[in-house]
Amino acid sequence: MQQVRLVLVGLGNLGRRLCQILHDKREHIRERYGLDLVLIGAADSRGAAYDPVNGLDPEQVVALKTSGASIADYPDVGKKAWLAAALVATAQADVLLEASPVNLDAGAEPGLSSIRTALRRGMHVVTPNKGPLVLAYTELHELAASHDVQLRFDGTVAGGLPALYIGQRDLRGAVVGRLQAVPNLCTGYVMDMLADGLTWEQATDRAREEGVLEGDGSWDLEGWDAAAKLVILANAVLGVSTRMDGVSRTGITDLDAESLQAAQERGERYRLLAEANRDADGGYALSVAPVPLSSDHPLGCLGRKQMGVVYETDIYGTITAIIDEPSLIPSAATMLRDVLDIYA
Amino acid sequence: MQQVRLVLVGLGNLGRRLCQILHDKREHIRERYGLDLVLIGAADSRGAAYDPVNGLDPEQVVALKTSGASIADYPDVGKKAWLAAALVATAQADVLLEASPVNLDAGAEPGLSSIRTALRRGMHVVTPNKGPLVLAYTELHELAASHDVQLRFDGTVAGGLPALYIGQRDLRGAVVGRLQAVPNLCTGYVMDMLADGLTWEQATDRAREEGVLEGDGSWDLEGWDAAAKLVILANAVLGVSTRMDGVSRTGITDLDAESLQAAQERGERYRLLAEANRDADGGYALSVAPVPLSSDHPLGCLGRKQMGVVYETDIYGTITAIIDEPSLIPSAATMLRDVLDIYA
Repeated sequence: MQQVRLVLVGLGNLGRRLCQILHDKREHIRERYGLDLVLIGAADSRGAAYDPVNGLDPEQVVALKTSGASIADYPDVGKKAWLAAALVATAQADVLLEASPVNLDAGAEPGLSSIRTALRRGMHVVTPNKGPLVLAYTELHELAASHDVQLRFDGTVAGGLPALYIGQRDLRGAVVGRLQAVPNLCTGYVMDMLADGLTWEQATDRAREEGVLEGDGSWDLEGWDAAAKLVILANAVLGVSTRMDGVSRTGITDLDAESLQAAQERGERYRLLAEANRDADGGYALSVAPVPLSSDHPLGCLGRKQMGVVYETDIYGTITAIIDEPSLIPSAATMLRDVLDIYA
Repeated sequence: MQQVRLVLVGLGNLGRRLCQILHDKREHIRERYGLDLVLIGAADSRGAAYDPVNGLDPEQVVALKTSGASIADYPDVGKKAWLAAALVATAQADVLLEASPVNLDAGAEPGLSSIRTALRRGMHVVTPNKGPLVLAYTELHELAASHDVQLRFDGTVAGGLPALYIGQRDLRGAVVGRLQAVPNLCTGYVMDMLADGLTWEQATDRAREEGVLEGDGSWDLEGWDAAAKLVILANAVLGVSTRMDGVSRTGITDLDAESLQAAQERGERYRLLAEANRDADGGYALSVAPVPLSSDHPLGCLGRKQMGVVYETDIYGTITAIIDEPSLIPSAATMLRDVLDIYA
């Protein structure tokens, strides 16, 4: 039985669900893979807890957070103001799980610094946080390689869909002529509501109630989220070193209801499509824009809680992968997938 | 640059296309992965050629086979009656590519013996041949493990779709509650033709012309092919040790045209569905049968050259993967995928 010591930074929607998964799956993973995944440290915005001897009880972490408390309130080992940076800089852990919120405006901090520190300290890093990858994809990969550790980020694109793993591993040897993705739930949901005749306010309120829209919504609705995911896909799968300014981006905020309703009457569904088209030089034109998809498009039948990716390749045909993701659990579970991919 | 010495047994539809891919992709793979894939030996049913010093020219192998000649006619190093078994038993190679035809009636020979020999000699084995896996899944895996080599067989299920890789790697930690697959092109093609009003003879003739039906067709049409693929999925992904007699199998030969046409009128498409349903004990009920799929089923929109798989999981949502495979190239390319997965 190999023990894998985890430190988790970020106890929001994803972090909490990962704790629940770690609790629920512990025995299964011990039996099936001979791995004992032990949460030895965790941090939220108010504090941290660290117990390298006994580990933390993931279910107790969930209970604390659900009750509105902080991890700082964890019995005996919780500390206020002991911030993530200090935990990452000192914990004797094997893997950092970095699940803090995306924050591109703030230079992807605090996630980016945590990831750099962990890699330099010889820890593997698993993160669903797009920010650090979008800003520093190449730097972080070089840092990981130079310290002989892994950097995994399957959860950054299209929730629980293994879009990156399929692209990076199963398309080896191929040239991708075109990549198309609907990597964002929120925009499809809102556009379907608008096509059904709801007002913009009604549609976004509904999306908030359903948990697919957070904050003021601009990150999703203006296409930043889809563009960030496309940047990561382009770097990871297409070998294109690019950042946000390499993507032509159109959000859904200027779409008029008439266009959406007309498309619906034609049997088409609008989706915010992230696309990479290979040009004659072997480069890729990257764009994000709302597009009406007919039902015979590989992503034309996506439901409101579905995301997908299409890879058009030279030797593996056209491969489409779709996820139906009724909750945030699959997105959180990508961290488990990544950890198991490193160790199992 | 690492040299990887390949021996290929079987120069039919898949083997020839793999040779073409090895030719076309050699430089790309050298540059991208630092691997030099060299074909040092090949065998067909009439002879073999072996040149460990200079290697064989894959394009010349394609030319020979296309002209109707045998690999025995390969200049200088081709030999008649030097059969696959002898080549596999003596070649100084790193990987055996076993692409001989499926032949369950003959105990999956000669493929099974070739694979056993190669594994015992410390060669990795890559095969799209279902027969040996269906008959001896556990034995071959134990043999590979005991000789510290890899056995890869991505091409055995659903052509070029990485159904096995997704299931084995990207679902780690999950319980699959239900697996559904349309892993066979031929049956969908024939059923669509019947629904369009063609007679059975017309439909199967058309399928033969299109290259999706081979031989007398019973392997495909009676559901043996889909059942074999389900057996491999069950072993590889679900951890169920089973063989053909563990699958309840219904082919499409008893379907009447009226049912097919009525389904088409309802907007449904019949597909030969391979299914594994988890029961209360954690076992799986395995079945293959023609089923009308509505357009909102994840595999309900499959075209005539498409295959797919659906994994319903506890923590990764429902993941669907579909391939559009207009030729046999993706099926052949799975051997490249497998080799690169071992080495890259």
